[in-house]
Amino acid sequence: MSVAQTLFGAAKMQAKDKSRTLTSEQLYLIDAYWRATNYLSVGQIYLSNNPLLKRPLELSDIKVMLLGHWGTTPGQNFIYVHLNRVIKQHDLNMIYVSGPGHGGPAVLANTYLEGSYSEIYPDISQDEAGLQKLFLQFSFPGGIPSHASPECPGSIHEGGELGYSLSHAFGAAFDNPDLIVACVVGDGEAETGPLATAWHSNKFLSPATDGAVLPILHLNGYKIANPTILARIAKDELTQLMRGYGWTPIFVEGDEPTLMHQAMAAALDEAVQLIKKFQQNARENSDLNRPAWPMIILNSPKGWTGPKEVDGYKIEGTFRAHQVPISAPVNHPGHLALLSDWLSSYRPQELFDECGCLLPEIAALAPTGERRMGANPHANGGLLLQDLKMPDYRDYACEVTTPGVRGVGDTRVLAPFLRDVTKLNDKAQNFRVFGPDETISNGLAALFETTRRQWNVTTNANDEYLAASGRVVEMLSEHQCEGWLEGYLLTGRHGLFNCYEAFIHIIDSMFNQHAKWLKVSSALSWRPKIASLNYLLASHVWRQDHNGFTHQDPGFIDVVVNKKAEIVRVYLPPDANCLLSVMDHCLRSRHYVNVVIAGKHPAPQWLTMEEAEKHCAQGIGIWHWAGNLSHDAIEQTPDVVMACCGDVPTLETLAAVSILREYLPTLKVRVVNVVDLMRLQPETEHPHGLNCQDFDALFTTDKPVIFAFHAYPSLIHQLTYRRTNHHNIHVRGYKEEGTITTAFDMTVLNEIDRFHLVIDALERLPQTGAKGIELKQLLHEKLIAHKKYINKNGLDMPEIRDWRWTSSV
Amino acid sequence: MSVAQTLFGAAKMQAKDKSRTLTSEQLYLIDAYWRATNYLSVGQIYLSNNPLLKRPLELSDIKVMLLGHWGTTPGQNFIYVHLNRVIKQHDLNMIYVSGPGHGGPAVLANTYLEGSYSEIYPDISQDEAGLQKLFLQFSFPGGIPSHASPECPGSIHEGGELGYSLSHAFGAAFDNPDLIVACVVGDGEAETGPLATAWHSNKFLSPATDGAVLPILHLNGYKIANPTILARIAKDELTQLMRGYGWTPIFVEGDEPTLMHQAMAAALDEAVQLIKKFQQNARENSDLNRPAWPMIILNSPKGWTGPKEVDGYKIEGTFRAHQVPISAPVNHPGHLALLSDWLSSYRPQELFDECGCLLPEIAALAPTGERRMGANPHANGGLLLQDLKMPDYRDYACEVTTPGVRGVGDTRVLAPFLRDVTKLNDKAQNFRVFGPDETISNGLAALFETTRRQWNVTTNANDEYLAASGRVVEMLSEHQCEGWLEGYLLTGRHGLFNCYEAFIHIIDSMFNQHAKWLKVSSALSWRPKIASLNYLLASHVWRQDHNGFTHQDPGFIDVVVNKKAEIVRVYLPPDANCLLSVMDHCLRSRHYVNVVIAGKHPAPQWLTMEEAEKHCAQGIGIWHWAGNLSHDAIEQTPDVVMACCGDVPTLETLAAVSILREYLPTLKVRVVNVVDLMRLQPETEHPHGLNCQDFDALFTTDKPVIFAFHAYPSLIHQLTYRRTNHHNIHVRGYKEEGTITTAFDMTVLNEIDRFHLVIDALERLPQTGAKGIELKQLLHEKLIAHKKYINKNGLDMPEIRDWRWTSSV
Repeated sequence: MSVAQTLFGAAKMQAKDKSRTLTSEQLYLIDAYWRATNYLSVGQIYLSNNPLLKRPLELSDIKVMLLGHWGTTPGQNFIYVHLNRVIKQHDLNMIYVSGPGHGGPAVLANTYLEGSYSEIYPDISQDEAGLQKLFLQFSFPGGIPSHASPECPGSIHEGGELGYSLSHAFGAAFDNPDLIVACVVGDGEAETGPLATAWHSNKFLSPATDGAVLPILHLNGYKIANPTILARIAKDELTQLMRGYGWTPIFVEGDEPTLMHQAMAAALDEAVQLIKKFQQNARENSDLNRPAWPMIILNSPKGWTGPKEVDGYKIEGTFRAHQVPISAPVNHPGHLALLSDWLSSYRPQELFDECGCLLPEIAALAPTGERRMGANPHANGGLLLQDLKMPDYRDYACEVTTPGVRGVGDTRVLAPFLRDVTKLNDKAQNFRVFGPDETISNGLAALFETTRRQWNVTTNANDEYLAASGRVVEMLSEHQCEGWLEGYLLTGRHGLFNCYEAFIHIIDSMFNQHAKWLKVSSALSWRPKIASLNYLLASHVWRQDHNGFTHQDPGFIDVVVNKKAEIVRVYLPPDANCLLSVMDHCLRSRHYVNVVIAGKHPAPQWLTMEEAEKHCAQGIGIWHWAGNLSHDAIEQTPDVVMACCGDVPTLETLAAVSILREYLPTLKVRVVNVVDLMRLQPETEHPHGLNCQDFDALFTTDKPVIFAFHAYPSLIHQLTYRRTNHHNIHVRGYKEEGTITTAFDMTVLNEIDRFHLVIDALERLPQTGAKGIELKQLLHEKLIAHKKYINKNGLDMPEIRDWRWTSSV
Repeated sequence: MSVAQTLFGAAKMQAKDKSRTLTSEQLYLIDAYWRATNYLSVGQIYLSNNPLLKRPLELSDIKVMLLGHWGTTPGQNFIYVHLNRVIKQHDLNMIYVSGPGHGGPAVLANTYLEGSYSEIYPDISQDEAGLQKLFLQFSFPGGIPSHASPECPGSIHEGGELGYSLSHAFGAAFDNPDLIVACVVGDGEAETGPLATAWHSNKFLSPATDGAVLPILHLNGYKIANPTILARIAKDELTQLMRGYGWTPIFVEGDEPTLMHQAMAAALDEAVQLIKKFQQNARENSDLNRPAWPMIILNSPKGWTGPKEVDGYKIEGTFRAHQVPISAPVNHPGHLALLSDWLSSYRPQELFDECGCLLPEIAALAPTGERRMGANPHANGGLLLQDLKMPDYRDYACEVTTPGVRGVGDTRVLAPFLRDVTKLNDKAQNFRVFGPDETISNGLAALFETTRRQWNVTTNANDEYLAASGRVVEMLSEHQCEGWLEGYLLTGRHGLFNCYEAFIHIIDSMFNQHAKWLKVSSALSWRPKIASLNYLLASHVWRQDHNGFTHQDPGFIDVVVNKKAEIVRVYLPPDANCLLSVMDHCLRSRHYVNVVIAGKHPAPQWLTMEEAEKHCAQGIGIWHWAGNLSHDAIEQTPDVVMACCGDVPTLETLAAVSILREYLPTLKVRVVNVVDLMRLQPETEHPHGLNCQDFDALFTTDKPVIFAFHAYPSLIHQLTYRRTNHHNIHVRGYKEEGTITTAFDMTVLNEIDRFHLVIDALERLPQTGAKGIELKQLLHEKLIAHKKYINKNGLDMPEIRDWRWTSSV
């Protein structure tokens, strides 16, 4: 870090007198621009009419419902305007992430003034009529919310749920060496866990091959009703905290606009200079050590420039500035005058011409074309998205000479395919695999034949696969993995998140928000589709032989299916060839969330690649070879349907079928396997849903169906309750029974094992008579024998371990 | 902070020569104790026989399955043994939180050696036979997992999912002024978001009225396969980070046991001294300023004292020490000797007598009785749990002269009740309300009539309701709120988490783990039940008038119902009196997770307190007054059942019923309201489930049921799919349609509004004939009129705003 430190020293010395960074003309113009943004922000919250205050403000000019958030807005306006200046000055390629919850008025005001808003929404024109519409639509029913929502140009991050801005910013910066992501971090959101660890993202950034993130911690002082921690600890503590996180903090503090403009301009010049020097040093001198990147701490009053006091309460600089500071002009005669004074304090007549256009000398402060942060294509990733170069997944098939051959672990078969996806796109640098330290554990070690884990902290002799740049990024934070990947996708790249199944619940809420973003953005024609968010959930519920109960939760898909059907897809490939086919499909898809659940342990393989392709294309199908009906089985009526979804349930179902076929050879058994879970829903509910006829053809209209499911059984009922034969569908799945034990014993604890499945079938097949009763008795004895054996030996009985599928039982 | 700083200086000067804290005898004994714990840990992973190595190790002595985690274990043994010393020396009241994922072998070894384990599990006796059983049960199918699970005495924190140790530790320390919670934080878990922000918990701790947390950051160096961030940044950065978080770091670094024992002993003496001085200063001098509490940074090799090298790979001090370092003695002839050497290196013959008892002079190092960390009642909270003193909730009833009177917001009626619960238990100091800065926003401001928000950072003149001690704790981190509350409950106290409904998903995974803990612990007779975890979810999906789509997600209960029926309860009170009754019940209950969803906005009130009590006791029932059948309606057959669950759906259902009654007076309408969601499930599935007969009596066996539900509609199908009349149940709920809009428009967007509900009913009531068709037409027109009106005015039509229920339509 010595070079970096030297550079930092040099930068410090070069810094001009910080109170004179701007000429007085620049100062006037930047302040004028800021006033214009503030004026527009207040206008959005309050005005339904008289947008330029051409005549005295009247009660009838005020909106009926006063909604919106003022508190963070002036500070964000200040930042945006100053970023505009440095973008122009240094010709920067920069995007803006608005972290604080409710920066809507600010990003709307700024994108409107720079012109990017009106280009997308010509109706909201840059004139008085447009201004009025801009004001009206804000926080209006069905209109524009008070966050930087998808509807807002330049946004890749919505501020509704807090904590992910910095992770998104880093995701955007990966593999974009020329990009600077300016990320405003609210001091409220800074208290969240995800944000608190996101500061460490700098340990995963390459100064050579990635871009930069410039965090601007906005010490606004308050949340909704409480002060914020970071605004109240001693400055020395905050400085140490940021240095401890590895950043170089630059403070901008105060409330006097003139001084603050000079300080902010100087701080941004210093920050940009440092970023450029660090990058230059890395790129020209191959010094890949982690620099102490600059970050800015902007300490300014909440609701800055707003009313100082209303009804005897201090507003500016307190939590009371959070939403609408002057809340009821209708009921309080004095409020109208207060509001009028507030609006007038920005002197709109000095800012806008008669038509409502920002005066050209002020407007000139903003950059033009794609340098405008509202028009930067990186913030509209679909514009930049390139198809991945894909190897032929069939080339990675495992040979299945006969169903039931032992595999090496499904994800281990997938890994070379992912390795080659990585390799083929190495030049494009647009594919990454994220995970919380589980990439090898999840069976994907083959990736390290072609790439490394990106890591920019010290390395030791015994470390493995670390490098300054690499396609794999691993940090023990599911939040970070998710946030980085989202940022990476939203800026037009591709990726995969591999995770233990149970712990993906950690990011339930982030998934929710991303799915909502995809839903809203898919309705915006100016936002082309982005790559899908792909989850590979390995180390799943049924195989926690050495972890146990805490690692068992297959409920993420229950959260997923609640989201819009157009967005979500869930796949449970039963074997490696199906996994290859599914993953190929997912990586090519757009604007979905794909959840793929797969095993990593050696397990039986069922389908040849050709069969797997066909099966996955259908998403659901009869496995004729596994049942004992002839090949045109759909024409024949089985006595029982044995259905399965997921690798372990498929194994247990086939084992159950082999028992049925051996002991009751005349019983007509059909096996149905489900890869694409959403095929089970009616076509009216999900685009992948089967129509009634096809569903009935598979599951019959009146025969018992024994359904072995990977996850919680109720989900199958939830998806199939409208089906004709639903009352005959008996589902087994995970029912929160588990401990540290063998894979087979896990199935017994949850009664999804082969013996229980056969017993379930027999109980619904009275026609099996005495033979059936005899078999049931035998299986109950087997279950007892199993318990005895495992309690004594800690292993499954040999007949379980040695069981092999033979098609001719 | 000046007093604190002076004290710190004094403590520093008083510190003895750190290399001579222990006498040579103490040093020998503490090392011997440590060796014993390490020996027992290796034994648990490897040995099925020959537990004292009385004869040369043979392959047949080795377990068939080698499972478990060595990496973190020796470090945790080291810490536990040293904590034992300071507990004895200073007569401390201390518990141990094992943060790193897999500290199982360490906590088991230590609680076994101190005797607390055998007291609970007499079968695992302190002799050779017991030792062998201790070894055998570990990581054996159905046995003891490799975490500090509920089965382990002294544990309030299971290490399966990482990141919550420090939050749990603080939760335990609140209101336990004599308790010190030693919390080992893994450097892996330290990368998670929740842990990264949990360091800030020190800003919410009172040195006067709370206990202390002593974090011991274990720089083990590696996670599963990667180095850890905190072990690889410069020591200077780490120091600044911890100081920035407000802690005083004390480093203990190295690998030479003798030096490390001295350093650790000195560090712990220093830490305990500082804690006592800070507390004394706060308690005697009323100096409530936040001290810079001590924390220890223990930098020791992963897999310390384990094999240095196996098969040419370095093990000790690398990621390869994570699980089982010598993995296959059976297949590698050399491995048996390596293992034998490793076990022998602890010189068991110098530690245990012939019978397998730890030699008394070594055993004497551990504290006795309840001072043993495995026997401290704080780690078995049910032992300490006292009933809350409860006011009579009926006293807080709102008057309901007639159904439909306007309320003030249901949570606002609840608030005075919660205020008085707080007040009545003020002496006992055993009730707290946690929330992420939303307590006032959620309508609970009345709490501040009797208490304050606990906050130990600077305050300003315009802050509200902050104090050094208080029953409300607010930090903008749902993870912290959840973790604190869990720690508080697990140590035998009571509490409530109030949160925006959408963002409770942030802690889905923490809820999962807590529910799992409750399930397992409820089977342990030696762990008495603890207070329930109560969620109050306000600011719910239907009322996001100024936030919009990002704040709309009612899916938390979908996650909840997947957990064991004995543990989970879900309540949706339709009005304030029901909310009072429900909350009273929840606060009295034990060992559940109770989810209560309630509104904060003014809304109609339906039931008198007497009616509410009865309704809530039944959990579900017919609202005779709302339908048009006589009072013994259960005997009468309605034409349609209008069912509702949740406050907004109840309002829309009653509005729909008033339309039906007005336009189709002869139609027989029954209204069923659901408070206790789990009443819908069959009694075989949930203890609250209705039996078939009772369900059929309410919902009929063949009449259409229009069910308006608060959350995602599929959940109702999931709960009722086995019911006789299920195919006639038509559910409306949230279907991911939303934006910033009015409450009524939200219901229209999701087709759960009164007009859609009537249309739904009419479509299933062909007998309504021409009148029905006419009404449908009228309602379609109403929907169009609504859209027009709201688009123009941004408000609901007057007929919606002014609608009032009257029983005599």
